[in-house]
Amino acid sequence: MVGPVTELSDITPEAYGVGARFTLSVYDSDYVSIILGALRSADADGLTIETDDISTWVTGSEQRVISYVRDVVAAAAASGAHLSVALMLSRGCPAGMTCELPSGVRALGADPVALEATGVRARAHWSLYPLLDGGSEGDHLTPILEAIEKAKSEGVYDGLDHGATRLDADLARVLETVANAWIGVGSVVQHVTTHVTISINSPGTPA
Amino acid sequence: MVGPVTELSDITPEAYGVGARFTLSVYDSDYVSIILGALRSADADGLTIETDDISTWVTGSEQRVISYVRDVVAAAAASGAHLSVALMLSRGCPAGMTCELPSGVRALGADPVALEATGVRARAHWSLYPLLDGGSEGDHLTPILEAIEKAKSEGVYDGLDHGATRLDADLARVLETVANAWIGVGSVVQHVTTHVTISINSPGTPA
Repeated sequence: MVGPVTELSDITPEAYGVGARFTLSVYDSDYVSIILGALRSADADGLTIETDDISTWVTGSEQRVISYVRDVVAAAAASGAHLSVALMLSRGCPAGMTCELPSGVRALGADPVALEATGVRARAHWSLYPLLDGGSEGDHLTPILEAIEKAKSEGVYDGLDHGATRLDADLARVLETVANAWIGVGSVVQHVTTHVTISINSPGTPA
Repeated sequence: MVGPVTELSDITPEAYGVGARFTLSVYDSDYVSIILGALRSADADGLTIETDDISTWVTGSEQRVISYVRDVVAAAAASGAHLSVALMLSRGCPAGMTCELPSGVRALGADPVALEATGVRARAHWSLYPLLDGGSEGDHLTPILEAIEKAKSEGVYDGLDHGATRLDADLARVLETVANAWIGVGSVVQHVTTHVTISINSPGTPA
């Protein structure tokens, strides 16, 4: 099933379907200026960004994509407003739900991302999806359980809920845990996505 | 890989991990009363509901779970506020990311859900995840492409974006399309989830 890999240096993150789709929700009547201000303050260098009325798609290198999400969310959080972020990271499926990759390329890892701390506490529900096919090797649960163990060792894990793992840490740590699990699975499984719903400044946040 | 199925009538949706996890975000400073009012107005009969500061988990029969989500979101939309909903439907993995199912049960379908129209227009980005293991049969893309074709035939499909399919229809139709694709895949793949981010009353909604 694993074909020869062509020149990896020719494969751009965009061609490999690397990107983030996110919806930033601000629970405040002043949401337009908070969101627009947050988007303006973030460094979009090296990124392609498409926004519509439902969500925003960002593609580029893993480090640049995740840094951008960190910057936008941290800037919105600085308003003090309660906000939530629905974030999906996708790789290995460039166009919509169909996957037409450069010839010969199956799985393609990347360096882990590293982010500066934000001082913003983020609580989140997280799911990781290795999208195997029948006939391939391995199973989908092993990399998920490994990612949960890693989140524990990083001090980001906060518990196991139905259908999701709960995280609680600085926004930068939460995004690193989610992104680096996704990148790690991506080195062995072509199509992998991860979804995380992040809550910030909630009046219901536990002490 | 497929063991004998025990008495299906003994398997409750809860034991099979059937449920919805959702975050309802209201872009309005009056969000607390809008969300609490929407939750109060929805019929919770036959459901187990757990809410924390990040999201709400609802488990019970597929029809009751999806009806509840419909009712809560439609009630919040009636406020006129812009809102978004991050919704995950999960089945086949009862506890967190680990899967301990009743002995012998592999895949378990259900009747399709049917919902009354709401009069609320919903636009959404949708992803469907059949979580196969290596060594099983089939591939993960075929059921996804079939679900997209079905969404087209139902008049709910609005286009293909990076990493997600765009839907645009009455909230009830969007939820039916998403839930019935998930139930359909669930009849042949044990662990299947679907994620949809729904946008309602956005000032950026196209005509």
